[in-house]
Amino acid sequence: MTPLQKHRLKYQPKLPKILEDLDHVTFKGNGATTSAQHEKEIEQLFPKTFGRPLLTPTSDEVPKKGLKIGVVLSGGQAAGGHNVITGLFDALKKFHHESQLIGFLNGPSGIIEGESLNLSEDLLSNYRNQGGFDLIGSGRTKIETDEQLEKSLAVLDKLQLDGLVVIGGDDSNTNGAVLAEACLARGQKTKIIGVPKTIDGDLKNKYVDISFGFHTAASTYSEMIGNIARDAASAKKYTHFIKLMGRSASHIALECALSTHPNLCLIGEEVAEKKMTLKDVTNQIADLIEKRGNKGKNYGVILIPEGLIEFIPEMKILISELNTLLAKGKDETALSPEAKATFDFLPQEIRKQLLLDRDPHGNVQVSHIQTDLLFSTKVKEELKGRSSFKGKFSPVHHFFGYEGRAGLPTNFDATYCYALGHVAALLIRDGHTGYMSAVRHLTKPSEEWEICGIPITSLMNLEIRKGKEKPVIRKALVDLSSAPFKAFARNRDKWSVEDHYAFPGPIQFDGDPAITDQVPHSLLA
Amino acid sequence: MTPLQKHRLKYQPKLPKILEDLDHVTFKGNGATTSAQHEKEIEQLFPKTFGRPLLTPTSDEVPKKGLKIGVVLSGGQAAGGHNVITGLFDALKKFHHESQLIGFLNGPSGIIEGESLNLSEDLLSNYRNQGGFDLIGSGRTKIETDEQLEKSLAVLDKLQLDGLVVIGGDDSNTNGAVLAEACLARGQKTKIIGVPKTIDGDLKNKYVDISFGFHTAASTYSEMIGNIARDAASAKKYTHFIKLMGRSASHIALECALSTHPNLCLIGEEVAEKKMTLKDVTNQIADLIEKRGNKGKNYGVILIPEGLIEFIPEMKILISELNTLLAKGKDETALSPEAKATFDFLPQEIRKQLLLDRDPHGNVQVSHIQTDLLFSTKVKEELKGRSSFKGKFSPVHHFFGYEGRAGLPTNFDATYCYALGHVAALLIRDGHTGYMSAVRHLTKPSEEWEICGIPITSLMNLEIRKGKEKPVIRKALVDLSSAPFKAFARNRDKWSVEDHYAFPGPIQFDGDPAITDQVPHSLLA
Repeated sequence: MTPLQKHRLKYQPKLPKILEDLDHVTFKGNGATTSAQHEKEIEQLFPKTFGRPLLTPTSDEVPKKGLKIGVVLSGGQAAGGHNVITGLFDALKKFHHESQLIGFLNGPSGIIEGESLNLSEDLLSNYRNQGGFDLIGSGRTKIETDEQLEKSLAVLDKLQLDGLVVIGGDDSNTNGAVLAEACLARGQKTKIIGVPKTIDGDLKNKYVDISFGFHTAASTYSEMIGNIARDAASAKKYTHFIKLMGRSASHIALECALSTHPNLCLIGEEVAEKKMTLKDVTNQIADLIEKRGNKGKNYGVILIPEGLIEFIPEMKILISELNTLLAKGKDETALSPEAKATFDFLPQEIRKQLLLDRDPHGNVQVSHIQTDLLFSTKVKEELKGRSSFKGKFSPVHHFFGYEGRAGLPTNFDATYCYALGHVAALLIRDGHTGYMSAVRHLTKPSEEWEICGIPITSLMNLEIRKGKEKPVIRKALVDLSSAPFKAFARNRDKWSVEDHYAFPGPIQFDGDPAITDQVPHSLLA
Repeated sequence: MTPLQKHRLKYQPKLPKILEDLDHVTFKGNGATTSAQHEKEIEQLFPKTFGRPLLTPTSDEVPKKGLKIGVVLSGGQAAGGHNVITGLFDALKKFHHESQLIGFLNGPSGIIEGESLNLSEDLLSNYRNQGGFDLIGSGRTKIETDEQLEKSLAVLDKLQLDGLVVIGGDDSNTNGAVLAEACLARGQKTKIIGVPKTIDGDLKNKYVDISFGFHTAASTYSEMIGNIARDAASAKKYTHFIKLMGRSASHIALECALSTHPNLCLIGEEVAEKKMTLKDVTNQIADLIEKRGNKGKNYGVILIPEGLIEFIPEMKILISELNTLLAKGKDETALSPEAKATFDFLPQEIRKQLLLDRDPHGNVQVSHIQTDLLFSTKVKEELKGRSSFKGKFSPVHHFFGYEGRAGLPTNFDATYCYALGHVAALLIRDGHTGYMSAVRHLTKPSEEWEICGIPITSLMNLEIRKGKEKPVIRKALVDLSSAPFKAFARNRDKWSVEDHYAFPGPIQFDGDPAITDQVPHSLLA
């Protein structure tokens, strides 16, 4: 272990006051809930868990009892996952020293196959406040087929688990709700609780301020973006196109923009709202480069969300047509005239990627499309044709993703996750199932944070997945009327040509709390 | 300014004891020096500065006097540059409150064109311990032609500078020596002092432990590499090919390997020593992937120095032949059979890059060759042909460079640079010219660091540049018999298949000195 890792083992997250005395926390319901949309259908799919009330804490005394709980990490890494587990563990041990925590290995497949590990204090002592998911691993398998569901229920039954905590994103929490419903239907005692994890920041709602891992990821990317911006302003010769991870929503890019003040940050949701074409986006970038270049500024920083491409209507059509055609063994010559025009607009490199780079289902791998290269290539062409452009344009490309998912969690994420683990344990002790653990008012000092339990069904609607209507948690895209977007929109013109780069620097753990205990800009805006 | 930036403004680097009382530091010579090689030729080229002695400090009293000094940043960014300037400034003001510091703008072209800025306490107060070179900018122009030299000498004369401090790498320091010689020849009073800057770490010798900026860059890359390694060990499905900046020498990659323990780190100098072919390197990587894959480890982290490609003998030949052919308007069909075989071995993508991506002189842009992609493509082909390989191979590519050059300097770089600035000021006050400012024994607490002045000519030899013999500072490549390489070689087998990733985390500024005041691993080995 490095010196910093060892030091972080000793960090003691400050819990919300309500979690200081676990012998006096229980929950009360606050009236029936409904779903985000498609109430009838969701109720039919979740007859036993639909409509349950939002839970808020009360301070009744609870008798001491030991619990046997399982935990699973689902999907991509997010900093703080280990702290959800230590939070769970510490809460369970406070409930009763005989409580047991069992970790399922390598994601939901560990449940299906019954592969698990008993989590002891000794083992956990090396993972407190550490990054990664390597204690028990994670995976993307879902419990989807009847066979997978049967096997999982059998494992939960065999282990006689009082509860199972599913740490995951929207899909994994949905999966948790399905499991909760199935346990109730079978009369199995296992309570299922979800914990909102995803660096993408698209799992949030009225009661979930933000998913965990978002802050560490965005802070790590912002450190790099700030460093690159300072390099750009010093060298004065490159335009940096920085693509940022975030499957679909542009929350990460927006958060990074608020903390680094780039010259341009594209927001997918706005591009969709304005129905912008590839040419429109190209022109927007080219206009910026021209304006800066003509002022002698042959450098700049441009943020591009990974999911941007799917928000451009014509690209959506092209990708959908390509998926259909290629499945039939046809090629791009069979595209509709509209889609063909889009295809022809793309740089050759990108066209090749679209045709050759397919996922196991034969679909275009949208996340592999080099959006940054696409636009820098088109912008270069565009600027060549502009006699009004007097500057120089030298693009440099970056992609930040894996760098930010598994690092040491910020104090914010470490504390938030530790609290989320506690709340999940409390919800199970109280006998609730199909709920998501939530900790709110995160811009306040952690002692003042509030806790609640959210019925997962209340967050659901129906969406088309693989051609079928499926109940899923509604993905939270960037809301163009939200405070963070508005804060960005208010400032972006100023940031575009004048240089107002902010340099956040590396995440700090010790010292002035104004530095070490920062929270996401998106919450403060 | 972000909270961390503001906080860093207040950081007070602890100077070496010898620099505490500048009124009692002067230098004494320690016998004549010679050059690294080609003594006769270097002496002929530098008749006035050749052979000067190494300077070490004595504690004689020095009368107070004001100095007028210029400073220039030359070449790529390296963290700490601003602290060399504040160190210079503070020393000058301690000499006499009427001292003046003038910054030449945007690199050596600022000297040639006489573009400068008076540096005041007010202006500098926003740059203390900050990253980047944006206070006065930098540039890659060299003072090479007679006309450039004449113009520069005229500017130095017009400003009546007592001294000029050139902050730069090997070439810039060589340029400083040329200027020093010219000033002496003309009877101009300006003394020229160089400061060893480069993230590449290839400017070091008996008296220069390491160039500044190396530590911050390597620490920033190591943070990212560690994060990626933790992600890899959690997700267990990707092999990360991480290319690291460093024009030619592999010091950065070696330093990052010592701090993160990747499964493989290629060292260009070793590849050259062993005369490895592209196929050899491909096989080395493929063997590792196979060994790991067959143990169920379908993930890994591989570090590749940017300059690797030029250390592979057959690539050197190919690039040289291509440069000659393409200059004559011929194409790859005219290559020698040997070079053609190398060319044909390359993935199509790389072949295209070699043919199309040319610098302004029409030469192959070696730094643009995607070495990481080259090897991951060849390794994929190689593994396909191996029936003995039972694993999966999914490569992901990264390149870290600009991220590490302009960030907030580590405490080490901030303090080192502040001291270097002081030593440069002292050397000028003492009337020395053609020297490099040096601070030694950097693994000790900064109070115990020692200072000296190194005749730049003593570091020189002749090398071929653009077809002509030129006097240059000998580049320090990775020495395969050095302690850092040996430490790496001792451990690498263990790191290759077992996982021993170390996760350094983000650079810390406050708290436990064992964490905040770390020094490069390469110095400790």
